[in-house]
Amino acid sequence: MTSEFDLIGRFFSRAARSAKLGVGDDAALVEAAAGHDLVMTMDTLVSGTHFSSDPEPRALGHKSLAVNLSDLAAMGARPRWVLLAITLSDVDEEWLAAFAQGFYDLAQRHDVALVGGDTTRGPLSITVMATGEVAADKALRRDRARVGDEVWVSGQLGSAALALRHRRGELRLKGKDLEGCSMSLDMPTPRIELGQALVGVASSAIDVSDGLVADAGHIALRSGVKMEICYDDVPAIAGVMHLKQDKVVRDAVLAGGDDYELLFTVPAGATGQLDAVSARLGLGLTRIGRVIRGSGVTVLDDSGGLIDAGAGGYDHFG
Amino acid sequence: MTSEFDLIGRFFSRAARSAKLGVGDDAALVEAAAGHDLVMTMDTLVSGTHFSSDPEPRALGHKSLAVNLSDLAAMGARPRWVLLAITLSDVDEEWLAAFAQGFYDLAQRHDVALVGGDTTRGPLSITVMATGEVAADKALRRDRARVGDEVWVSGQLGSAALALRHRRGELRLKGKDLEGCSMSLDMPTPRIELGQALVGVASSAIDVSDGLVADAGHIALRSGVKMEICYDDVPAIAGVMHLKQDKVVRDAVLAGGDDYELLFTVPAGATGQLDAVSARLGLGLTRIGRVIRGSGVTVLDDSGGLIDAGAGGYDHFG
Repeated sequence: MTSEFDLIGRFFSRAARSAKLGVGDDAALVEAAAGHDLVMTMDTLVSGTHFSSDPEPRALGHKSLAVNLSDLAAMGARPRWVLLAITLSDVDEEWLAAFAQGFYDLAQRHDVALVGGDTTRGPLSITVMATGEVAADKALRRDRARVGDEVWVSGQLGSAALALRHRRGELRLKGKDLEGCSMSLDMPTPRIELGQALVGVASSAIDVSDGLVADAGHIALRSGVKMEICYDDVPAIAGVMHLKQDKVVRDAVLAGGDDYELLFTVPAGATGQLDAVSARLGLGLTRIGRVIRGSGVTVLDDSGGLIDAGAGGYDHFG
Repeated sequence: MTSEFDLIGRFFSRAARSAKLGVGDDAALVEAAAGHDLVMTMDTLVSGTHFSSDPEPRALGHKSLAVNLSDLAAMGARPRWVLLAITLSDVDEEWLAAFAQGFYDLAQRHDVALVGGDTTRGPLSITVMATGEVAADKALRRDRARVGDEVWVSGQLGSAALALRHRRGELRLKGKDLEGCSMSLDMPTPRIELGQALVGVASSAIDVSDGLVADAGHIALRSGVKMEICYDDVPAIAGVMHLKQDKVVRDAVLAGGDDYELLFTVPAGATGQLDAVSARLGLGLTRIGRVIRGSGVTVLDDSGGLIDAGAGGYDHFG
């Protein structure tokens, strides 16, 4: 008999130095740092909705944690503790071992401790809850963008959506482009270091999970401002730059979700600081627009004409 | 178009006074109390595994939170913040409103704030993560039971399992017994006040979710002791006391999960303190055994004979 307790014990109970009590009691016990706010987030990945019905387990373990760490990054937080609820239709030990490896590899990279959770039987689904810490009242929020701020983004956008379109045969990526886009889709990198570097620099931030226009819209709505984005300035992978006016590429760049780059606003004059952060992290940071009076999001081409960005974004109940 | 954002906004975004930032950003922001440990737990309820495929939504909202608050109670913690991940096959607004009511009614009773979460599309499943606080190093753990301690339990055991057997036609409950057992199964009461009252009194504690013998076994294993339980002392509802030797009732009392009473150990001589707690809370507390040298759990009848309690307990991968 393989029991719930065995599964947790065998695959998900590596020692958690940062916890007073980890997996194995009714709940985990941890000690929060004084002078800090706690940052809490939770995301679910469901088979068939967020990934194929037969996903590569190591990538799934990575991604289920990555999307949550990305939310902490968008708040400028240092990740500390995570809980994992995994629902499985049956027990496949090889699958579980690979899933656990993908999960722990990323957790260790960011010194995050898995301190608890639950395993249950049912259709494959993974929920991760992550808690981080940020200096009191210093978190990067969505509601603090101000008119006159600049809009910036990390990395390249559209990569995950391009990989998906490649797999569907809607376009063809090659070599390093295919490799990079596939990594963005399957094993995205949460921008943890960038988020922490932006504390005290950025006025607002969000991670690009729904798509650039949709996520810019979240900042606009919560801050009571308008985001004006210059499409030609939005960075995409080199291999599609000459195709940037094609609809399939434009949709990927503007509305493709799952990029997990950070979109943020900074007061004018922070370029020097951002260049230094970019150099230190080896991560491109690009100014793509500005915050103006109004509401919503406008996307302009390089002649100042309006691009119809559509409703944009990925919406689980759309 | 009903979007994820609309759903959260409409059903799950009541103001959370105890949070600096609740639903609506990348993550929630809260402030932990100085001198306290954080207590974290997460449980998933899956359709078909933990409840029928067509559950009563208000009860489900209550229970999904209750099972997590019960884990905090078992640690002696004061519940503070919860996150909710709900996966739905489709959007039924009446259903969601009833679910939210069941959830919030219980949350408000214990001054718990829903500060974040996720809604996704897929087979019905609910994961709740709850965070509480307890004075530093004062949490009730499973691993501190000592030889010579007494074993106590709150309320009555087997009620939820008896309700389930009634519904299956395996036995017949009537009147107040049926009512009480049905409440235990559908809308269990987490023993929050009791857990906090036991801090500094109990040496160990657990909530009875897997079944009495199984949960006593968890304390025995983690504490390196043996739990000896006297079956005739184990409290059950009045209506089945004359049937206590029948197998179906005995199984419900010893191995029925889902009771969410607290099982705890106290050093000898704490009876006066426990009687005072019992009177204050209006909740029965009963001594049912003792902690001895050895390992595992033994159940005795009133003549000191051994009762075969079986493997006992509910195990999601059994």
